[in-house]
Amino acid sequence: MSNQIYIGVDLGGTNIKVGICDERGSLLHTYEGPTGAEEGAEAVLERIAAYVRQIVEDSPFSWEQVAGIGAGLAGFLDIPRGIVKFSPNLKWRDVHAKDRLEQLLGKTVTIDNDANVAALGEAWSGAGAGVPHLVCYTLGTGVGGGIIINGKIYQGFAGTAGELGHIATVPDIEAINCGCGQTGCLETVSSATGIIRMANDAVERGESTSLALLEKVVEAKQVFDAAKSGDEVALRIVNRAAYYLGRSMAMVAVVLNPQRFVVGGGVSRAGDILFEPIRETFKKYTPEAAAEGVDIVPATLGNDAGVVGAAGLNLR
Amino acid sequence: MSNQIYIGVDLGGTNIKVGICDERGSLLHTYEGPTGAEEGAEAVLERIAAYVRQIVEDSPFSWEQVAGIGAGLAGFLDIPRGIVKFSPNLKWRDVHAKDRLEQLLGKTVTIDNDANVAALGEAWSGAGAGVPHLVCYTLGTGVGGGIIINGKIYQGFAGTAGELGHIATVPDIEAINCGCGQTGCLETVSSATGIIRMANDAVERGESTSLALLEKVVEAKQVFDAAKSGDEVALRIVNRAAYYLGRSMAMVAVVLNPQRFVVGGGVSRAGDILFEPIRETFKKYTPEAAAEGVDIVPATLGNDAGVVGAAGLNLR
Repeated sequence: MSNQIYIGVDLGGTNIKVGICDERGSLLHTYEGPTGAEEGAEAVLERIAAYVRQIVEDSPFSWEQVAGIGAGLAGFLDIPRGIVKFSPNLKWRDVHAKDRLEQLLGKTVTIDNDANVAALGEAWSGAGAGVPHLVCYTLGTGVGGGIIINGKIYQGFAGTAGELGHIATVPDIEAINCGCGQTGCLETVSSATGIIRMANDAVERGESTSLALLEKVVEAKQVFDAAKSGDEVALRIVNRAAYYLGRSMAMVAVVLNPQRFVVGGGVSRAGDILFEPIRETFKKYTPEAAAEGVDIVPATLGNDAGVVGAAGLNLR
Repeated sequence: MSNQIYIGVDLGGTNIKVGICDERGSLLHTYEGPTGAEEGAEAVLERIAAYVRQIVEDSPFSWEQVAGIGAGLAGFLDIPRGIVKFSPNLKWRDVHAKDRLEQLLGKTVTIDNDANVAALGEAWSGAGAGVPHLVCYTLGTGVGGGIIINGKIYQGFAGTAGELGHIATVPDIEAINCGCGQTGCLETVSSATGIIRMANDAVERGESTSLALLEKVVEAKQVFDAAKSGDEVALRIVNRAAYYLGRSMAMVAVVLNPQRFVVGGGVSRAGDILFEPIRETFKKYTPEAAAEGVDIVPATLGNDAGVVGAAGLNLR
């Protein structure tokens, strides 16, 4: 085996997942262990290095075949210099992750934010394989995004490109505040948090819905399940989340004209009940020339998108 | 003189403008003559070839120094194949412009649409010189756009990227129909056409404005002049056009995080009365991380942007 391999690290607040990909982005081996964030940044970085060395040792590959190591994490990053400026879930501030890992491993290390890395994973060997211009949405606690241009992550001027959750889509008269300081951001309605909030608001207003039987709505899945059982209120909430996703895609389409939108993250598992109204809204609100031939598909790598995309950061 | 030169052609419905640029995008010589569109596509293409040969002959450069010829025009284009699918002002349908011009001139020919080409001109040697990630607005009869990524025009999947005039920015309740088939598009309020329409509407509604003294408002400049003289109604219209430009830029900023917005086209000559409210709105509605270090500046090449950008199409 003389081919190069690519190591990806999905660095979460609770667990570190490490994977080995081949040059086509197939995930061959994975290893997962605790992050131990409470022990501080140096301990976490040493643990990553140990996991990386271990997974290669346990594999049929040699250390010489490692082309590079990529890591994805949530936080504000200085990507070119590989510095984690601030990561709330790791409680890191100004951690020179790239330099320290390169010292520990003797290989090129590249870091990037989790939404960008997930987009790259889908672009490399997931729902966007073979599509050069791609826009990925990740629907979770927030709405993340990643833009792939010519097969590579597009970072923008200061590394903040692809913040799709902060496209102002909700009209001012019904907009609520977003954590970013603005109002009407997509993620106020189309994230798990937004869906849960709309559901609890409806219950509180005394609307007639099966969701009122729960002590409190705590998961977006509860809303999707109710909608699938024909609950009108739940269905209205799902349609609202989907509507603003579709309208945001209409805006992105006239600006970027991507060939495909890939939608991943926990919320996207809801399936057709979410995707059908997204597609309808997109079609209705996008000028024909920008909509023609463009599709909207679910992500296919699931929880592996992060580790695969991180591995892809060192592709030429 | 052994350096290469780049020829740009700005192909309009009335005039053809041809220019010679050096390798830094300085426009050294220009020639302008009638298009003669009524004689048909073949006659126009032959005329372009004649103008190009003439301008080089009249210059101190030799034909061997010509690195390539670029042409910008308004219409629906198949850019990779160099085919004009439809151009309303030239009345062309399926004209193989690239192939025919290459045959006539024996040099590489590249065509692109006018808004993209103007953006490239500003990026090369205008208001965006030295800025790799740039978004340009052209405010004229419509609102055109061009996206520059790493110094090159970004076309998107089907060549329709940068259709900034069709970002839906006006809320549905006050949106009017756009020529693209959608409603609420930026160009319904921020183009010359939109500004003129809003002014005539205000006069018709009997609002108290100096614009009512004109037989009819026919130019956006009349509205800007009235606003500068303190006319409240005209000022409100200018602010509305600026407000939606600023809001559309806030959306583009979270998606693309460009370093600079360049605003050109006839309407942009209004100056500070337009740019100040654009900047204020942008600042107010853009999350800090996406707004930091980003500026909004007027185009500097004026009517030359098209010919300079066309020349730049063949840069490596």
